Order: sequence, then structure tokens, then C-alpha cells
Amino acid sequence: MLERIHSPADLRGLTSGDLQVVADDVRRRLIDVCSRTGGHIGAGLGVVELTVALHAIFETPHDQLVWDVGHQGYPHKVLTGRNQQMETIRQEGGLSGFLKRTESEYDAFGAGHAATSISAALGIAAARDLLGEAFKVVAVIGDGSLTSGLAYEALNNAGHSDRDIVVILNDNEMSIAPNVGAMSKYLNQVQRNPIYNRVRARIGELVEINRSLETLVRKWEESVKSFLTPGVLFEELGLRYFGPIDGHDMKALVETLSAVRPMTGPRLVHVVTRKGHGFPAGEHGEKWHALPPGHDPATGRQRTASSANPAYTAVFGRGLVDLMTERTDVVAITAAMPSGTGTGLVASAHPSRFFDVGIAEGHAVTFAAGLATRGLRPVVAIYSTFLQRAYDSIIHDVALQHLPVTFAMDRAGVVGEDGETHMGLYDIPYMLAVPNMVLAAPKDGTEMLALLRTAVSHDGPFAFRYPRDAAPDLVGPISEIPPVPVGTWEVLRQGREIAILAVGTMVRQAQQAAESLAIEGLDVTVVNCRFLKPYDEVTLHALCAHHRVLLTVEEGR
Amino acid sequence: MLERIHSPADLRGLTSGDLQVVADDVRRRLIDVCSRTGGHIGAGLGVVELTVALHAIFETPHDQLVWDVGHQGYPHKVLTGRNQQMETIRQEGGLSGFLKRTESEYDAFGAGHAATSISAALGIAAARDLLGEAFKVVAVIGDGSLTSGLAYEALNNAGHSDRDIVVILNDNEMSIAPNVGAMSKYLNQVQRNPIYNRVRARIGELVEINRSLETLVRKWEESVKSFLTPGVLFEELGLRYFGPIDGHDMKALVETLSAVRPMTGPRLVHVVTRKGHGFPAGEHGEKWHALPPGHDPATGRQRTASSANPAYTAVFGRGLVDLMTERTDVVAITAAMPSGTGTGLVASAHPSRFFDVGIAEGHAVTFAAGLATRGLRPVVAIYSTFLQRAYDSIIHDVALQHLPVTFAMDRAGVVGEDGETHMGLYDIPYMLAVPNMVLAAPKDGTEMLALLRTAVSHDGPFAFRYPRDAAPDLVGPISEIPPVPVGTWEVLRQGREIAILAVGTMVRQAQQAAESLAIEGLDVTVVNCRFLKPYDEVTLHALCAHHRVLLTVEEGR
Repeated sequence: MLERIHSPADLRGLTSGDLQVVADDVRRRLIDVCSRTGGHIGAGLGVVELTVALHAIFETPHDQLVWDVGHQGYPHKVLTGRNQQMETIRQEGGLSGFLKRTESEYDAFGAGHAATSISAALGIAAARDLLGEAFKVVAVIGDGSLTSGLAYEALNNAGHSDRDIVVILNDNEMSIAPNVGAMSKYLNQVQRNPIYNRVRARIGELVEINRSLETLVRKWEESVKSFLTPGVLFEELGLRYFGPIDGHDMKALVETLSAVRPMTGPRLVHVVTRKGHGFPAGEHGEKWHALPPGHDPATGRQRTASSANPAYTAVFGRGLVDLMTERTDVVAITAAMPSGTGTGLVASAHPSRFFDVGIAEGHAVTFAAGLATRGLRPVVAIYSTFLQRAYDSIIHDVALQHLPVTFAMDRAGVVGEDGETHMGLYDIPYMLAVPNMVLAAPKDGTEMLALLRTAVSHDGPFAFRYPRDAAPDLVGPISEIPPVPVGTWEVLRQGREIAILAVGTMVRQAQQAAESLAIEGLDVTVVNCRFLKPYDEVTLHALCAHHRVLLTVEEGR
Repeated sequence: MLERIHSPADLRGLTSGDLQVVADDVRRRLIDVCSRTGGHIGAGLGVVELTVALHAIFETPHDQLVWDVGHQGYPHKVLTGRNQQMETIRQEGGLSGFLKRTESEYDAFGAGHAATSISAALGIAAARDLLGEAFKVVAVIGDGSLTSGLAYEALNNAGHSDRDIVVILNDNEMSIAPNVGAMSKYLNQVQRNPIYNRVRARIGELVEINRSLETLVRKWEESVKSFLTPGVLFEELGLRYFGPIDGHDMKALVETLSAVRPMTGPRLVHVVTRKGHGFPAGEHGEKWHALPPGHDPATGRQRTASSANPAYTAVFGRGLVDLMTERTDVVAITAAMPSGTGTGLVASAHPSRFFDVGIAEGHAVTFAAGLATRGLRPVVAIYSTFLQRAYDSIIHDVALQHLPVTFAMDRAGVVGEDGETHMGLYDIPYMLAVPNMVLAAPKDGTEMLALLRTAVSHDGPFAFRYPRDAAPDLVGPISEIPPVPVGTWEVLRQGREIAILAVGTMVRQAQQAAESLAIEGLDVTVVNCRFLKPYDEVTLHALCAHHRVLLTVEEGR
């Protein structure tokens, strides 16, 4: 069937049965492609039926479909003219792993970070209303994204606005890690309320029998909703609630979306899906969030071995566990990324001192500030790109109060395949501007642990950045690694005329460059500028005195 | 009475009647002080009774009291040993206008921005539980702050945590401007539900009659709550809800807080107050949010005239209104600050193109990005310091997608009396780092309007910053002001040897300095660097060729 679908228009008018055949084809295609190329497959497999149904019922690209995060976007790409290019996904010059406006007219809004979709969709709806245009706007958001304040700000504003906007809540009970937070608990409760589901079914039958009863029944339904609680939270925020619907039941999806599309006002359709649906290993949790290349499509097992040295992330996680054994005042905080940041190891080893606050970076940082006021030493581990969400909390709650919070900024610098939305390129300038902040970058895994030790003993905010890569060295236990004096640089090679001031990942590159230049007779100095702030004034003055040219190299803007 | 209260301990054991006398004294004292010194008085007057009751029932400073925003903190300062210093508020070397940890042991957490209190309080509670300490933690948050995503992230996390934490919702139906958003609508509904209030009273009586019925009654109360909706939103998020309570009824406050304090688990007390209560002009809305010095305490009328030239804010607001008459594709967005940003004028002149999204800066920016995808030209007017909240939305949703959103950054540079939490010192480095962003700063009001005109015609993101000050020039209508070529500087004075590269507010200062220096025989060049990015390469090269020293001056880090 998939071969006959050249664009979403070809889906319209097909029966639910035929649409399910298309969905099965899309699922097979995704598993096949991702097993070879890698990629974030779990989210996509969960929304295959939903994606087919959305494109069948809504008139894309005229109707505007806004995906959240974009990990969910793979089946959408397959159906919107990009099936032949799927093999190029996440490669240079190939398709993006996320949604991208410049890639397709079907991508109404780009998305790499979580929780942006409702805000963007509401903006699109407001523009439509102002310009007197007529189309529908749909935001598809995962339950994990609902722990983010941005999603709430948008829901709250949408509920108040009375605009014609549809929010699809793709509820798979799992963002990247199993969700935390009351919202997640609430959604579980909604799904499992059999009384509500029975009552709902009865109401449907009654409405069928006599249309004139509809208004009365709707009023009654609303009070039943309030009484039994499912959906009441969204109803209270001003959105009309529909659901829960089985996201793998094509007939239910088609019927519900067909009914909801012609309505007006803000409305939310609650669709329950299983992440990784249809892929044997795909329902097993966080590790199947993304798939590295080289997996067996039948079993989901990895076929190739990973690189020799452990990643910085793993070195960090293990080092933090050991440091927390040594120092009982250290606590660890993650924003829904225990595995991605290595802090999952802390969750097992020191559960009472581990906090996963959900996709809520601002709260994570202000929460850490609160912990620090009582004498604890919080280590906040967040990707450089996601920490952008917490910029005001870093300045206002941590730095201005000079509180000893450590920021472990993973995925700093160029991140490769994840592309531009995930680049850790801004942390150097944004952190340098923060008052009282120490900013450092290690040249290898051992120095990262030395900086971690330094950070938790420092009387004020301290941030260090490290890349997605494997650490270039073999790292021993943190108990044997001493701290680094704050603000000191390390001259690794003493040359003349030219000094390379290298930061983090660039230190090895600079050393290699210096060796090549030495062969050609050029003797350059190489400095490991492990502290960007405060910088090493003494060393810098000495360098200025003895060199004609200073060359700075860092991964960042 | 107030003279006999040396610390909150002196409040404990007093009757409700005596506490009300103290409250009356505090209110009189606040009106007297603020009429002479100026300051944010409205919020403080609304929470006089609440503050007295909190300190009487909770064992501060052992119990940790976390205030949100801090505008509410004036009566708290009067009661916690700072009464004699109140005259120094918001002056150099005097008391801060906000809460400040270094100022008093009663200030558990500093606060200048909205919505941080629940996150901080939850961190403090988590630290207490880890360290095995025993005290209570109270966050006092305004209903306006509840439109912020940060407050929601924290509520969601608190509701899930089961920690002993009390959230006081100070609901005055007005943040700075009248609240927008569904949450606000919801709170109004709660307050006005007479059935709920009657039912509640009955339940209280029943519980009095027979304690053994309590469990049953509580279950019933919960379902009644669900049915009638008050509090259900918070209950759904996992917090036990108490209220609504009249925040000017001392007896009700004392009784409720006494009952709530010994409980455990996350709980929310909904207190209804009137901002500016007891001050004739104080209940009139946004303009009484803050009081400039020199007001008549009896009438609230201002006694002194304000400065000769209009503020940049006013020039901006009027210019934007006129530009929007000329250009129907321009729309304006504020985050709960129509008056503070001058966009309130747009609300009257072009209501359909004006959007107040509440205290929700991240949403404001992503919403603007959505508007821009449909061909509109959004102008987002947010204070430099509050825009920090939207940093990720600026990068991820606007800049990476190269969308034409204009950022009007008011209160850039040093803001004076508002102090460190409100300084607009970081926007230069944080905006310079953003890809595709144009960053500019006008030397006066006329140039600001020229930049505004330039911005809405520019095909990409464009930010300009301006100070809290009065504009130094008399500004004509924007229709007569042409745009500025992007990336150009202006050489205002051609000298030799030394060139001063001045930005924004520093341009006049540089000109004045140059004139003084000229008298002493030193002829310096002065350049208006109105674009920080892209900078004027041609002019810079020419300056380098003809000068020995370049001196840069800007208000920022």
C-alpha cells in the first residue's frame, strides 16, 4: 500500500482497514531503515497509526500539523514525500532527525526540544484568525512534554483564547525515562478508569439514538467528567477533552478525529500509545529511545561493538556515584534524562540523593538552589542545549545568591547527527556572562572528574562542559583524582612565537597540530585553558610576553 | 502594638484581635513609608494580615518562609527586625525592594522574578528530609505567578513528591496587569462558587459534631470538591487544597494556618486578598503596582511632576501604535506587562493585534515564532531581565528557523532602585551568541523608532535594547523616521589617536567626555555603535587604520 501513497492526499477516503495496511507498511519501513541507519525510533513507532489517521482526516499541508520534539516525526516523513530519503536520516546532507521547515511544506514548525508545539500552534492559529484564513491547526505533544512549564503556559493561554486549535496528547506513559510528576500520575489514572470508559460508551450510544438529547447529554457528560475526574484537569484549563482513545486502533482514531476536526474552540484528544509499538525491543524503555546504527531488525540487538573508551557521560556517572559515596552532602539532579546524563547510576547507588524532576529544566535549577541553601551540594546534569531553558534560574536563583550549585553540561560543542537544535554551542557565552559563575572544560575524562571534585568543594556556582564523545583517556577511580586549583591553566608544550590556547576537546587537536608543525620546524606552545572563567591571568601574561601570536580554539560560539 | 513586636516570636500567642491591631499598624507604617520613599506597595498591602498570621503560626526563622517575587515582602520586612530601616528601601546601601538572603535570616530565599518560590521551597524541603531536620516550609505565591511555567513545573513535582510543604496561593486576581489565562479564570470561579462555600461550612460543622465521621466526610468532601470543581486542579496535581479563605479575616487565617501547619504532605491554602487593601488608590490596578516617591498618603496622588522628556518605554509604545497603523502585518506581544512595556497603548489602538500571554516569557516567544511562520511580524516587548526566561525559545524556535521576530528589550543596562535581580546586564552576551540574530542599541528615542522600523522589515530575528531612562531627545512621529541600514555605525565626531566606540546610553556620555577632552586639547573620535551584530566592518577597519587606541563603552557585561 505504501508505494501507492505519494502524498497524504492519497490517504483521504481510504477505509480504516486500508489505512491500517498503510500503517503496517510504514512501521515495517521504519524498523528496516532505523535498524540500518540508527535514529530515534521508539517515539515514531508509537505514533504510526496516529500519523496515518491525522494525515487522512486533516487536510495537510493546508491544515497545519505541529509536532512536538520531532522524535515522533519519522512516520510523518515517510508519508510526506520523504520515504525515498529515509536512509539519509541524521547524516550530513540528509534528512534531519527532527522536523524542519526548510525540509518540507508539511513541517509547519521545527522541533528538536520538547514542549514547544502548543505555543507554536497557538501562534499559527492566532495568525490565521487575524488574516481571516480558514484551516485547522493541530499540535501533537507527548505526555512527557507536559511536565515542561512551556507546555503548561501554552495550554493555559490556549484554554483562555477560545481559538480553534486541536491538541493531540500522545500519552505513552514514558517521555525518555518513565515520567515523573503528578501530571503523569494523573494521566495513568485517566487511562485506567473503567467507570469513565463505560459511561462514555453509553453516552455515545444515547447520542446516536436521539440527536435532540445531545445538549442535555453533553451537560451531563461534563458533570460526569468532573465527578470521575478524567480530563477534568484539561477541562479546567479551558480545553474540551476527548478520550482516552487507543492509539493503535485505527477505526477509533479515524472516528474521533473526524468528529473533532469540524468543531471549534480549544480541544484536546487524549490518545494512548505504546512507544516502540511493533518493535520487539522497542517497548523496553529508555535505551530504545534512540538506536545507534547496526541493529538486527528482528531482535533489536546491536550488531556492532561500540568504541573502545567509555563516553564522557559514563565516566561522569561512575565518578559521581563514587564521589557521592565519599561525600554525603552531594546530591544529583536530572531533568528526565537519567540515562542520557549518566545520573541513572546514581539513582541505583544513592536513590535518596537522586532527583529526577521531569522535563523541567528551570525547576531543576531553582530546586537545586533551594537544596544548596541548606548546605547540600547539588550537581545538576543537563545537556548544554537543554540548559538554555534554565538560563534565568541560573542567573536569578543560583548565581545572584552565590549558591554552590554545580552544572555538569553534557553534549557541549558539536553533537553531530542530532543536528542544529541539539548543538551545545552557546554555553560558553551564556555562562561567561553569569556573575559569580566558574566555567571550566576538561581536556579528558580524568580532568573532568578532577573538575567535578573541585566543583562540589567550591563556594559558589560552578559549571563545566564536556562533549558527546568517548573520553580520550582511560580514567581511574575519582578517589585517586585530586581537585584542580580554580582558575589555573596548564602549559602542555612550551614553544615560541605562537601559542595555541585550547579549550576542552580542542586540547588534543592542538597537541596533534603542534606535533605536525614541529616536524615542519615550527615550535608552538600549547595551553590547556581548562578554566574559561576565571582565566589564568599569570599564565596569560607570561604567554603574552613570550609569544607574537595567541590562537584560541574552542567548540562554541 | 507594632512597637512591641521586635521579632515574629512576639506575635506568637497573641489573639486574633491583637494580631489584627498589629496588622493595622503595619499597614499604616507601609503607607507612610512608601508615600515618602516610593516602592512596590500594592502587593505588600494585600498581604499584611497574611504575613502577620504566617509569622504568628509558623516558627520563623526556623520554619522556612519563601516569598515569591518579593514585592509582597514589605510587611515581612517590617515584622522581621527591619522596621527602622524601611525608609532606606530601594536606596543605595539601604534595604532591597525584594527579599534577600544576605539581608536577614528570615529571608529564606531571594526573589525578584516571579514564580520561583515553589521550586525553591521544594528544594529546601528535600534537603530537610535528607538531613533529618524538622521544620516547616512555606511558599507564598501570587495567582499571577501561576501563569508561569516554572510554578507549574514545581507544583507538578511537589504534588508527586509527598513532601511536607505548604503552598499559600495569594490570589488577588491581578498580577501586575489583570491576569490572563485559563488558570486565572479558574481561580475566579473557585472564589465565586457559593454552593461550594456553603457545603464547606456544613462539612466543618459535621466534623465538629463527630470526629469519628471525619474520614468518611473527608472522602465525601473530596468527591464534592471534584464535582463542584474548586481546588480540583490542585488536587489533581497532588496537593491537598484548603480554601478559599478571606485574606483580610485574621481569625480565618489563624485558624486555617494552625490547622494546616501540623499536617504533612504537599498542601495548598487558597487565600483571597485585595492588592493595595487599605490604600485609597491602591485597589485601582496596574499603576499602583509601584509608587514613585512623593505621594500624598491620604489620596495616593502624586505630588511632584515627573521628568521633562518621556521615557523610552512611552516613546516605544506610541511609536509601535503608529507603526501598526501603517503596517497591518505587525502584531505586539507582552508577558503581563502592558503598562511596563508601553504596549498597553497597542491594546487600546489595535486590540486584535495585541496579545498579553501572562507571565509566560517562553510561551510569548514561541507563540511569536508561530505567528511569524504565517507572514506576520511580531514585536515581543519584554524587559531584558525577564527575557532570560525565554532564552531557549529565542534560540530554538525563532533564531534557528530564521523567523522575523522583533525583540524590544526594555530596561536594558543598569536599572537602579530595582536592584540586582532586575538589572538588564546580560542581554548583550546572551543575544550576541544567538545565530542569525541582529542586535542593536539606539542612542536616543528617535533612533529607537528607526530601529523598530528597521526591525519589522528585516527578514530574520532582530533585537534592540533600551534603558529605563527618559529618552534624551524630543521624538517626532515614526512616520517621519526612516529605517537604519542594518550593520551600520555612525561616526559622530572625527578626532585622532583615540576612538570611543559607544553603545546605546553611552553615546551621549562619550560625546560629553569628548567635549571635555577637547577643552584639554585631546581630540577623540566618537562612534555610535548602534549595531552590535552585525558590526560595521568598514567603519571599524577605517577606525583601526587611523587610531592608536579603541575604547569600547557599553552598559552590560
